[in-house]
Amino acid sequence: MSNKQLDEAKALSYAPIGVFDSGVGGLTVAREIMRQLPDERIVYFGDTARVPYGSKSKETIIRFSRQIIRFLKTKNVKAIVVACNTASALALEEIQSELDIPIIGVLKPGAKVAAETTENGKIGVIATESTIASQLYTKVIQSHLPQAQVLGKPCPLFVPLVEEGWMKDPVTVEVANRYLEPLKESGIDTLILGCTHYPLLRSTVRQVMGEEVNLVNPAYETAIELKGLLDDMDLLNDGKGQFEGPVHQFYVSDAAEKFKSFANSILPYGIDTTQLIHIEEY
Amino acid sequence: MSNKQLDEAKALSYAPIGVFDSGVGGLTVAREIMRQLPDERIVYFGDTARVPYGSKSKETIIRFSRQIIRFLKTKNVKAIVVACNTASALALEEIQSELDIPIIGVLKPGAKVAAETTENGKIGVIATESTIASQLYTKVIQSHLPQAQVLGKPCPLFVPLVEEGWMKDPVTVEVANRYLEPLKESGIDTLILGCTHYPLLRSTVRQVMGEEVNLVNPAYETAIELKGLLDDMDLLNDGKGQFEGPVHQFYVSDAAEKFKSFANSILPYGIDTTQLIHIEEY
Repeated sequence: MSNKQLDEAKALSYAPIGVFDSGVGGLTVAREIMRQLPDERIVYFGDTARVPYGSKSKETIIRFSRQIIRFLKTKNVKAIVVACNTASALALEEIQSELDIPIIGVLKPGAKVAAETTENGKIGVIATESTIASQLYTKVIQSHLPQAQVLGKPCPLFVPLVEEGWMKDPVTVEVANRYLEPLKESGIDTLILGCTHYPLLRSTVRQVMGEEVNLVNPAYETAIELKGLLDDMDLLNDGKGQFEGPVHQFYVSDAAEKFKSFANSILPYGIDTTQLIHIEEY
Repeated sequence: MSNKQLDEAKALSYAPIGVFDSGVGGLTVAREIMRQLPDERIVYFGDTARVPYGSKSKETIIRFSRQIIRFLKTKNVKAIVVACNTASALALEEIQSELDIPIIGVLKPGAKVAAETTENGKIGVIATESTIASQLYTKVIQSHLPQAQVLGKPCPLFVPLVEEGWMKDPVTVEVANRYLEPLKESGIDTLILGCTHYPLLRSTVRQVMGEEVNLVNPAYETAIELKGLLDDMDLLNDGKGQFEGPVHQFYVSDAAEKFKSFANSILPYGIDTTQLIHIEEY
């Protein structure tokens, strides 16, 4: 590469990473990226006006994802992370062919680690209705481990229970018992927490499933995958670039204040400003 | 009126009524209108791509409601019923001044009947977070009964529990106990079921609150109010008009098939066709 090309590559490495989700849940993914890649800057978008995605159709999720990507590209991101399992399952394949920057979802990294972790080949997946219906976790796991048996279970009450703040409530334990009983009986040794809110229920899921079952958090695996991808493409930020404004930027499609208070309970530091945008216009 | 004016008024009375909601819940209102006004035709719109509205901001609910009204007007409706409590609380006042046809919400009819029904002046309201935060139930009740004490309680888990089909489940009874305990202790004698899904939980709410508390269903009161309004304006359909296509039409912004199966469990007859539209384009 010429010096000019080197300079351009360097400048690009200082660009932020776009991270999006249907709402606040994707902040658990942003948090992992911040932990594992502390020199990277994030532009986060939460689609709080249209949350949740988990019971909506593929066509709608693709339309929403395209609008969000058009918005993130106005922020000159160098890569995009689809922090929502539902959008990763329903929209990622369709939209990645339309993009000229790398894009990764949370589904494939989680599925891969589950396939590597299981010893008895029996893997459970808990996720939204739309993610389970897509069968994509099953397909990706079996691409790594063809003989794997994958049992999917939609848990539609988990997100509202987390948002009510009842993470360890007896009601939540009872609901978890109800949802997880068939998975427990089937003898799975690995369980994917396939929705961004579910890691917040980790201790309740652990209590119901017992100590022997491996819990896979796709957020953690996705941050590792992102690091490898940026490294391969010489896009890792060395933290020495100059930039204006805050390190991380947060955008939402509704009720910025409410998002901020939830964000401040999840992230390791308080966020100052959140900007409201009309995502339908993108 | 001249014969021509009479003919025009008659033609207008044969036009359908527009009914809209954030999703399927407003079908409980459509059902009441069908029961009480069997000669009327309904054009129903459920915003299933952006459901739920109950935790979203006033600005967003107004923007969504305006788009839906623009859509309903393309169907030449003679009047509009806002079948969603949240939209009735947050958007109705703003949008009614922009319209040249009558529009009513579910909130005022329910509030009025509660004020007329209470004997001890203590009224409870269960609804979404946004409806309770708007304080509009309190204002309308006190406009009829200034000394009324109104206790509002958001019940965010009720809608997902209904949509999971757990109407009479022990989990739902426990959640209802938790939510309703403070209302019960305060000695209310009247309780407004201030969200379209809640009448589907009537027997669980009855079980928790006891036989003595009056339960007010705004859907029922709204159909009565609509009948009076159409009568006053000479807009009641006598059922003798000619029209093409089905008596009632159903439109949604996402996943038409899923809506149809829920609709068929609520409505007294099966619906054949549901049409998907892109509501953001209106």
